[in-house]
Amino acid sequence: MKILGIDPGLATVGYGVIEILGPRKMACISYGSIRTQSHQAFPLRLRILFDDLKEILERYNPEEVAVERLFFSQNVTTGIQVAHARGVLLLRLEMEGLPLYEYTPLQIKSRVVGYGHAQKHQIQSMVQRVLSLEKPPKPDDAADGLAVAICHYYARMAELHNGGSPQTIQTRSSRV
Amino acid sequence: MKILGIDPGLATVGYGVIEILGPRKMACISYGSIRTQSHQAFPLRLRILFDDLKEILERYNPEEVAVERLFFSQNVTTGIQVAHARGVLLLRLEMEGLPLYEYTPLQIKSRVVGYGHAQKHQIQSMVQRVLSLEKPPKPDDAADGLAVAICHYYARMAELHNGGSPQTIQTRSSRV
Repeated sequence: MKILGIDPGLATVGYGVIEILGPRKMACISYGSIRTQSHQAFPLRLRILFDDLKEILERYNPEEVAVERLFFSQNVTTGIQVAHARGVLLLRLEMEGLPLYEYTPLQIKSRVVGYGHAQKHQIQSMVQRVLSLEKPPKPDDAADGLAVAICHYYARMAELHNGGSPQTIQTRSSRV
Repeated sequence: MKILGIDPGLATVGYGVIEILGPRKMACISYGSIRTQSHQAFPLRLRILFDDLKEILERYNPEEVAVERLFFSQNVTTGIQVAHARGVLLLRLEMEGLPLYEYTPLQIKSRVVGYGHAQKHQIQSMVQRVLSLEKPPKPDDAADGLAVAICHYYARMAELHNGGSPQTIQTRSSRV
């Protein structure tokens, strides 16, 4: 099974694709980022994200997709922009009929690093270790994309042992 | 010239279409709302907004579109959801190649009612008067959609007298 993990953003959307090879055995298929430029018009940037995500989906054909939830700490203006961008990404995934899952930054760090307040470099080195990469994945956003995918796999495993499965955001109890 | 005004939302997107017949002479072509239900999955709701806006554009063929900017007062969670929805609406407008303009709630109230802190009912009755409607447009969101369209027309007129034209959100200085 292939899982796509997405770290949403307006200037940078990080993504990572992993393949599940066996119990707790994962391989990294790819990672990277979609980028838009601040001199581009806002609606055009949304369009680029929408189009480029389609390309990624066609290239890797993931069976499931996990998207990080937004967490607003300080900058509301940036948060609003990212939410616009995330809406467009969710729309694309919905249009492709993919099962969507979402996790908060806290859930991702807790599951992947084992510590909800983990730093960027801790996420990078844990992702590197789990996927047996030669070097830490860069940029940060791509590492975060991989972390979301890994988090989703762990969540699936945990639920499997508990006799359930993670809820998609198609379900009511897990709204954005 | 036909102008479409949009008041973005997740559960309700209000819209209004006006036609400019002459200097300060406008006719109301249509108004209404796109609705989604809270029991529907979030990505599906985005899809409905995206699809229904296309239908509205095909039905009325506006030359220009004005969309209200988001203003976050209290509820950040609702604000995030509306921003997702607004992203999807802007994407649709971008895909149809329409010139987009945006105004803050304050700008809309100031231009249409002459008072930035106008109440809902004041907007409704001013919209009714300006468009010579038999009764105040309802629901609120549809009246707001008409108000955004009227605001855009006034902004165009004002700029015309000042020798310029309102900036689209294609331009850098008017980001979302």
